[in-house]
Amino acid sequence: MSLIVTTPAPPYYSVIFTSLLSPDDQGYGEMADRMVQLAHQQDGFLGVESARGEVGITVSYWRDLTAIKAWKANSEHLVAQKMGRERWYQSFTLRIAKVERQYSM
Amino acid sequence: MSLIVTTPAPPYYSVIFTSLLSPDDQGYGEMADRMVQLAHQQDGFLGVESARGEVGITVSYWRDLTAIKAWKANSEHLVAQKMGRERWYQSFTLRIAKVERQYSM
Repeated sequence: MSLIVTTPAPPYYSVIFTSLLSPDDQGYGEMADRMVQLAHQQDGFLGVESARGEVGITVSYWRDLTAIKAWKANSEHLVAQKMGRERWYQSFTLRIAKVERQYSM
Repeated sequence: MSLIVTTPAPPYYSVIFTSLLSPDDQGYGEMADRMVQLAHQQDGFLGVESARGEVGITVSYWRDLTAIKAWKANSEHLVAQKMGRERWYQSFTLRIAKVERQYSM
């Protein structure tokens, strides 16, 4: 798994997910790992980058909005989303953004 | 400073900066802090979220592309960009993405 994703030429889509975990985050790590594994099997998935300090930031990359919609509706992912809202996340913001330009070094 | 930025209703822009630091990153932390401070003074700056694990992810939010262009051309920021390329970053990818939707909990 590469840490910085090699994405195709824009345009494509990103989902920027920033979160604060609850004090009791038992089971979160395993679920997060499983979601990354599952996302890789989704049509249109281009990769994911993740880091956690005081906040966690996960940016996943997708071919188009249709691919994001399908991932959101994935049944196992729906269970994880529900557990995230009810148990793991103190707060989060999710943003869907169209990547127009990119530059790497 | 809030950890998760409260952004206005979309559309607005994000700059997603993912980086791997060089083994010798002396001076990086101070410069990064200074750049955040400086960005706050820029017209059109909406906020920044940052986390570092194996990779660092910094997402800054901007009113429009004009604001991003002005920040890129800021003279003190130009010096930091040069030092980043020459000294601190082993590799990085910068993506400019238009935020179309957001959802918070």
